[in-house]
Amino acid sequence: MSPETPAAGAASGARSLPHPSREDIRLAQVLHALADPMRLRIVCVLAAADDELNCADIELPVSKSTCTHHYRVLREHGVIQQVYRGTAKMNGLRRDDLDTLFPGLIDGVLRAAGLQDHRLKEAR
Amino acid sequence: MSPETPAAGAASGARSLPHPSREDIRLAQVLHALADPMRLRIVCVLAAADDELNCADIELPVSKSTCTHHYRVLREHGVIQQVYRGTAKMNGLRRDDLDTLFPGLIDGVLRAAGLQDHRLKEAR
Repeated sequence: MSPETPAAGAASGARSLPHPSREDIRLAQVLHALADPMRLRIVCVLAAADDELNCADIELPVSKSTCTHHYRVLREHGVIQQVYRGTAKMNGLRRDDLDTLFPGLIDGVLRAAGLQDHRLKEAR
Repeated sequence: MSPETPAAGAASGARSLPHPSREDIRLAQVLHALADPMRLRIVCVLAAADDELNCADIELPVSKSTCTHHYRVLREHGVIQQVYRGTAKMNGLRRDDLDTLFPGLIDGVLRAAGLQDHRLKEAR
């Protein structure tokens, strides 16, 4: 989904949140957004779901305000889009934008996260 | 090169710097280390050189103390090794460790950085 969707929502009176356009997304900022275990988990769950999810659909062992912070970092750095649908704030991975800008990067990070999870479970 | 090399140097009396062992390297920390344009540049140059380089071999538009900080972040998060050879501090990408832990990740990041550099030059 393009970042124009929330803006179009704003024009129709719905609440909307700022998103960087595809051409304003930068690699260092995407890597920063991904450089946190909670945010990595959010991205892995959204990628596996291949659909929009509510924050409540992704359980994280942190406070609600910390959760909100992590989603905001992911949105502001171009990794996810957040759109209000009725009263729900829905989150989706900006897969098309990221795969177009940085082919293979998100797949590489998801694979690395999966391998690390597996390795750390085996080590317990 | 393994992180044991600097430790072996320490045993023989040479100065050495702390490095995480391969099993202690974490994806979120590697991504954090890469999440900076200067550090990305260092990694790209080291990867292209495929050899150890002195800090002075990689020109960065920042002060010497900022430079030192960036190299330290890369070392402490497991991305590079830094070894004293005589009076020179040499830097090398921990390619074997990273490719073993996270296959394809560094290649994906290097490719993404190259594509972004090309895109930004075209846009000027």
